[in-house]
Amino acid sequence: MGIKRIGKQTVKLANPPSIIGTAAIVGPKEGEGPLKEYFDIILEDDMWGQESFEKAEARIQEEAIKLAIANANLSPEDIEYLFAGDLLNQIISSSYAARQLAIPYFGLYGACSTMTESLSLGAMIVDGGFANNVVCATSSHFSSAERQYRFPLEYGSQRPLTSQWTVTGAGATVLSANGNGPYITYITTGKIKDYGIADANNMGSAMAPAAVDTITQHFKDTGYNPDDYDLIITGDLASVGKEILLDLMKKEGYDLSKNYSDCGIKIFDGVEQDTHAGGSGCACAAVVFNGYIYKEIIKGNLNRVLLVATGALHSPISTLQGESIPGIAHAVTIDNLLK
Amino acid sequence: MGIKRIGKQTVKLANPPSIIGTAAIVGPKEGEGPLKEYFDIILEDDMWGQESFEKAEARIQEEAIKLAIANANLSPEDIEYLFAGDLLNQIISSSYAARQLAIPYFGLYGACSTMTESLSLGAMIVDGGFANNVVCATSSHFSSAERQYRFPLEYGSQRPLTSQWTVTGAGATVLSANGNGPYITYITTGKIKDYGIADANNMGSAMAPAAVDTITQHFKDTGYNPDDYDLIITGDLASVGKEILLDLMKKEGYDLSKNYSDCGIKIFDGVEQDTHAGGSGCACAAVVFNGYIYKEIIKGNLNRVLLVATGALHSPISTLQGESIPGIAHAVTIDNLLK
Repeated sequence: MGIKRIGKQTVKLANPPSIIGTAAIVGPKEGEGPLKEYFDIILEDDMWGQESFEKAEARIQEEAIKLAIANANLSPEDIEYLFAGDLLNQIISSSYAARQLAIPYFGLYGACSTMTESLSLGAMIVDGGFANNVVCATSSHFSSAERQYRFPLEYGSQRPLTSQWTVTGAGATVLSANGNGPYITYITTGKIKDYGIADANNMGSAMAPAAVDTITQHFKDTGYNPDDYDLIITGDLASVGKEILLDLMKKEGYDLSKNYSDCGIKIFDGVEQDTHAGGSGCACAAVVFNGYIYKEIIKGNLNRVLLVATGALHSPISTLQGESIPGIAHAVTIDNLLK
Repeated sequence: MGIKRIGKQTVKLANPPSIIGTAAIVGPKEGEGPLKEYFDIILEDDMWGQESFEKAEARIQEEAIKLAIANANLSPEDIEYLFAGDLLNQIISSSYAARQLAIPYFGLYGACSTMTESLSLGAMIVDGGFANNVVCATSSHFSSAERQYRFPLEYGSQRPLTSQWTVTGAGATVLSANGNGPYITYITTGKIKDYGIADANNMGSAMAPAAVDTITQHFKDTGYNPDDYDLIITGDLASVGKEILLDLMKKEGYDLSKNYSDCGIKIFDGVEQDTHAGGSGCACAAVVFNGYIYKEIIKGNLNRVLLVATGALHSPISTLQGESIPGIAHAVTIDNLLK
């Protein structure tokens, strides 16, 4: 047993599941950013006809899941498990989305690492012969996250330059035992790293050490080098965390300067859109992956990607009680072709 | 692929993982209840030397995980994945416990269904050849839960008779590819059921339909009948939910009156301990399973158990926004012997 394990924290899938459909829905601000052409739906109004930010986020996630399933030419009845989570207390966006779908449901909490947490579990469940088709999904909403984690928007608080802009949107991926790729081939699951950062307006610094730990372990476990990837991309370290990651990786002996980026940097034009350090939130990695990365893989412009979504596992209460912010990062390898 | 699936929502494990170690830690009130002889540690003080209820809960979960690993004669380095979740916002009890353990970590949110959500995922990951040993864990704390979900304890609010008493404690289970049972043999994963209950003081009614749905589907998928089990036990429907479940199961054509119980009824003496409808919380199913049920299986007094932890997936915000409470229930079969 444990036959699919390589190294300390990685599994190599024996029957790599295919990504057979994705969807990315974003809010108006994200739809004005550099990746606008890659999104399935750009909302004109981030309330989307709902009465609250939280209900809007649930609707966005629900529609992303339905659209990913439709894009895979399947029906919800063909899906055996839904793996989903989000940032809100008790992950209500995911649970109220799941309520509309009648798919057996595993709720997850990995903060902004949820996209790769859900892909990791979904891929293992398909590879292990427990399902033919699963959906992996997550969402976030600027307005529901800001008032929960930091300040009510009505306060008009000034945002420090290390702060990030929570992405409004949702992404969903259909993984299948039956398909012709792109494939999920390796999964490196992260441990918590906490270097003592306690500032909820400096998440990139809090999460960067976890990303470094997971990426380094991935290379050690698989024997791959940075050059083996067309793109290595973290979830939402943004500009502050990116520099820390590049420095720390260099100390570990890996030069990522040529092919590394971060979804939080990709999604906004930081100067034009005044987003400070960059994007964040569960949806940041989710919409960049299910929109931009997936479509570039399909086009053949990217053939091998290491996606490393990053999560900050604190709560407003833990911050008030003086706790620092534990970070985590989960990596999945997406290969266009099987070698 | 999907070769381990039977029926609509069930998998039959091909290489059933063994439960090789458990731990159950409870607070003082639970330690005065009918199951007191089954718990590994009974706390004299539910703060356990910590400065807040939340930090106490994290410590209880951390110690339960460590104790379960020790009881399995393993070290934390032998554990390949930790599956854990709890009730608190952003599952901080689990994440701060995981921070101390350096085990690759999947955070879950299934509310009070977390024990069987974690056992379901952990068992599939071991069965699928992705790990040799995993830990599945959850916790809850009366004082951290009450002030988050209902009212600050200092208000001294009167509790209606349908209300339940959140269990203080944590339970952890080590599943292994190498062992001689008891085994996890079947997993039936629940869908969300919401019959419109919106009262956070009547969780049994909100969750009972989900338990009925999952148990009924389990029987349909496997071909088993209630008589095939020594015990069918839900997580925390308590006395109100139990009666609803028995009625609804009868309408579905299944008589559970002989061998059905609920962890929320087992853990307290409702009259002597003034707990009204019974126990609840993630720890309710966790400590009853990892304490009482596991030890009765080891003794041979129970040979086949269907454990069905039940979760109410609302939040205080969803309740304030007028939403009803979505329920979910996940079932796992524990067999003392493989047939």
